[in-house]
Amino acid sequence: MLSLTGHNYIGGERRAAGTVEHKSLDASSGEALPYTFIQATPEEVDAAAQAAAAAYPTYRNLSVVRRAEFLEAIADEIDALGDDFVALVCRETALPAARIQGERSRTSGQMRLFAKVLRRGDFYGARIDRALPDRQPLPRPDLRQYQIGVGPVAVFGASNFPLAFSTAGGDTASALAAGCPVVFKAHSGHMATAECVADAVIRAAEKTGMPKGVFNMIFGGGVGEILVKHPAIQAVGFTGSLKGGRALCDMAAARPQPIPVFAEMSSVNPVIVLPGALQARGVTVAKELAGSVVLGCGQFCTNPGLIIGIRSAEFSEFVAGLADAIGAQPAQTMLNAGTLRSYANGVAQLKGHAKVSHLAGNEQAGNQAQPQLFKADVSMLLEGDHLLQEEVFGPTSIVVEVADSAELTRALQSMHGQLTATLIAEREDLSAFRDLLPLLEVKAGRVLLNGYPTGVEVCDSMVHGGPYPATSDARGTSVGTLAIHRFLRPVCYQNYPDEVLPEALQNANPLGIQRLVDGVHSRDALN
Amino acid sequence: MLSLTGHNYIGGERRAAGTVEHKSLDASSGEALPYTFIQATPEEVDAAAQAAAAAYPTYRNLSVVRRAEFLEAIADEIDALGDDFVALVCRETALPAARIQGERSRTSGQMRLFAKVLRRGDFYGARIDRALPDRQPLPRPDLRQYQIGVGPVAVFGASNFPLAFSTAGGDTASALAAGCPVVFKAHSGHMATAECVADAVIRAAEKTGMPKGVFNMIFGGGVGEILVKHPAIQAVGFTGSLKGGRALCDMAAARPQPIPVFAEMSSVNPVIVLPGALQARGVTVAKELAGSVVLGCGQFCTNPGLIIGIRSAEFSEFVAGLADAIGAQPAQTMLNAGTLRSYANGVAQLKGHAKVSHLAGNEQAGNQAQPQLFKADVSMLLEGDHLLQEEVFGPTSIVVEVADSAELTRALQSMHGQLTATLIAEREDLSAFRDLLPLLEVKAGRVLLNGYPTGVEVCDSMVHGGPYPATSDARGTSVGTLAIHRFLRPVCYQNYPDEVLPEALQNANPLGIQRLVDGVHSRDALN
Repeated sequence: MLSLTGHNYIGGERRAAGTVEHKSLDASSGEALPYTFIQATPEEVDAAAQAAAAAYPTYRNLSVVRRAEFLEAIADEIDALGDDFVALVCRETALPAARIQGERSRTSGQMRLFAKVLRRGDFYGARIDRALPDRQPLPRPDLRQYQIGVGPVAVFGASNFPLAFSTAGGDTASALAAGCPVVFKAHSGHMATAECVADAVIRAAEKTGMPKGVFNMIFGGGVGEILVKHPAIQAVGFTGSLKGGRALCDMAAARPQPIPVFAEMSSVNPVIVLPGALQARGVTVAKELAGSVVLGCGQFCTNPGLIIGIRSAEFSEFVAGLADAIGAQPAQTMLNAGTLRSYANGVAQLKGHAKVSHLAGNEQAGNQAQPQLFKADVSMLLEGDHLLQEEVFGPTSIVVEVADSAELTRALQSMHGQLTATLIAEREDLSAFRDLLPLLEVKAGRVLLNGYPTGVEVCDSMVHGGPYPATSDARGTSVGTLAIHRFLRPVCYQNYPDEVLPEALQNANPLGIQRLVDGVHSRDALN
Repeated sequence: MLSLTGHNYIGGERRAAGTVEHKSLDASSGEALPYTFIQATPEEVDAAAQAAAAAYPTYRNLSVVRRAEFLEAIADEIDALGDDFVALVCRETALPAARIQGERSRTSGQMRLFAKVLRRGDFYGARIDRALPDRQPLPRPDLRQYQIGVGPVAVFGASNFPLAFSTAGGDTASALAAGCPVVFKAHSGHMATAECVADAVIRAAEKTGMPKGVFNMIFGGGVGEILVKHPAIQAVGFTGSLKGGRALCDMAAARPQPIPVFAEMSSVNPVIVLPGALQARGVTVAKELAGSVVLGCGQFCTNPGLIIGIRSAEFSEFVAGLADAIGAQPAQTMLNAGTLRSYANGVAQLKGHAKVSHLAGNEQAGNQAQPQLFKADVSMLLEGDHLLQEEVFGPTSIVVEVADSAELTRALQSMHGQLTATLIAEREDLSAFRDLLPLLEVKAGRVLLNGYPTGVEVCDSMVHGGPYPATSDARGTSVGTLAIHRFLRPVCYQNYPDEVLPEALQNANPLGIQRLVDGVHSRDALN
């Protein structure tokens, strides 16, 4: 058994002045694990935010190499978390060991990728417009711009990715990369996991000489609200429910100083199966799609929750195959009792709706989630019924049959914003339905052809974002290197002598980065 | 006299079903000009937003060359607005003809600069991660990302820049460049000017074959609120007061689908005069600074409203010189009666405050603004008195004397967010006060050395933004080419065949733009 204190992480110390205790639970049995976590007091939340604010001036001005070394040290520490750690995460989340091992690699890989971004230096967005002293009617001063971290960032981890979207997940990695200290609110679903990962981060911070307060973590209920309202906090990263995310957005917008919130919330991730593909490989698609629906007990933000096709014998056959495949899937344990309760509620709401029919799945009962397939009348989409627009988190999907291509377009137009939209299509479908492509990219952050939306690659090109309610701000992504830009803001230096400019903007270009100089990209030193 | 209809611009038509009339006023005399403007009805506001939404799919998918040609045609049309137009703007705003001529060039130059950005193509942010089919444990699909316009943008023009921050100003230019149709709310202070410029935009749109609805303009009071709440609007650009900007932010945040608002609001633009500079050139600085305070009747967002120095004989002498210089400045006519009323209120509040003393300026009375200089006790800054944090829009500045370097730091730390912060310093000051530099860049969007903040260059490196309340979102700028990024969002294409990808992401790189390919910047075509 791992030794855990259950205390909050504040400015390099462990503090627990509070009296409210929380227990970590075994996700499969529901029994309490032998770990107790002490809820941060309001004073401790304040101290955590202040610690982050105190670290900010030092941390943001460290060289990118130092910051990169910190991220790489975190990656090494995470990789070193062993089998006992994996076993603990499995107990808290009911996710299988192979998945946790994969997620561990993904989490450390993500840190290393951001270290690479720091060394590459394009995140600086360095721009230089040199002085034009002889310009008429007025001279132009020397003007140089780059991007700095916005300040301390509050991060709320997700239940469904205890590593990759949690303590040292993508939001934390991108904030730290941007030069922003972090206050992390540990998710109640995996507090022991959070403590182990926070320890790894703190070890890395100590090894690489980071300022105390660069990373802080608090436990408890209601502490997140205090955190988001704290004047030192300058931005928020969140992954979770629409209700929770929207509440944070509303709080942040109502502050004396409003701050941006990047909340990744709710997406049904439509999959459109086109006629040519149905004809060519309907049977295979049904099997693969069923696999995507139940993968990880359907507990992915990009789980395909809506499957749309045009009425035909082939589509009916495909739906039958899909129903068979989903009906044959075993029940799975969900992340926690609350998640299962929400899932059961969502399934019951679908079952109770007059325009929804049940196609496959055992009765939802007991302590596991039964995979389900439903069919809903297209009028529900066209009339904006919220049941088809809001994610049922778990192994469930809904089939919608449209009459023809025109109704397909109307159905897609009626959809809210999505993380992903997928076309299953043959080449002839792409010409016949070419108008769908521009429509889908307006609705989603990521559009896929002949793939399944589960599985989000961590790379430069990924967008894990999209129009509301998929996220609160479609201009961000919470996966991939572009995520760093959520926590950066531009600063312009006018008429600064070379020696007081940041290195990224000095004439000699000591960092060797690409810059936009008088409108032209260049890595050259300037005279 | 110019012939104006006073009707709203909706989807390429002129509509005026309403009955509420507004008159344009001569800013100097207050008399009504012979132009009547018909307030848009709620139906017309809806129609304008719908027209923009209808234009969006076509407009955003036009080639960048087409969009650039549109912007350049607008620039040509604006340049062609003649002396009668300049005379009209002068009557509506009381600004001198030379200023309006300069602003006309700036406005057309801004359009041409965004056309250049479109042709350069870096705004696309093109990123490509090629497929790795043999990767273990899982293959990587082909992933490509670029930026698209967010959708229709509502723009609110500023009173103080009837051209450069108005109908065809920076917000409109950057939104149109991003591929976003615009609905512009004409400012009540220069409706006739707005109509002439809108005509220029429409002529350009017709000449270059843009979709109807690419640019719309509405007149009237209260119509802006309907516009910001309209579901078709996806972002807002605003320049104006803190109260007005914050109200729009709150409305936008409370929508069923919240949208981003880029509001440029309130900044006192501190100027810190350091000892070495005082000694070397205190007399000159006092004269130059006085010129910056009264320039354009102080009606600049970047007007230096706060002047800070360390107690010394030299500083006292400098303040005396500044008081003489400001006391010698003539009264000037403001943009409109409301602006003068606000100015008189602001001056009266300062005069009435126990901790503020009046250093120079004639009694504020009559129909012009009298330049004023005040001195405030540093405790007002340290204790967060709002009088020193909120802009008095007009030719007024406030001197604050600090005891020493430590108090200077505390005073600056207590300041809210700013558009600009300026150091007047000699080389020896920069070493002695080196710690000020990182502090200033945390407080402001632009930091200046030995210059004056009035005068905002339109270029790649400019930041006209800053932490709240300078703007509602420090990550944006409303001047300079980075402004386009406020209205863009990323989209990722997974596994798209080359021929259906946008040109910016196709293998052959037909646009010849720079892209981030597998982590490396390149203009090469791919195999």
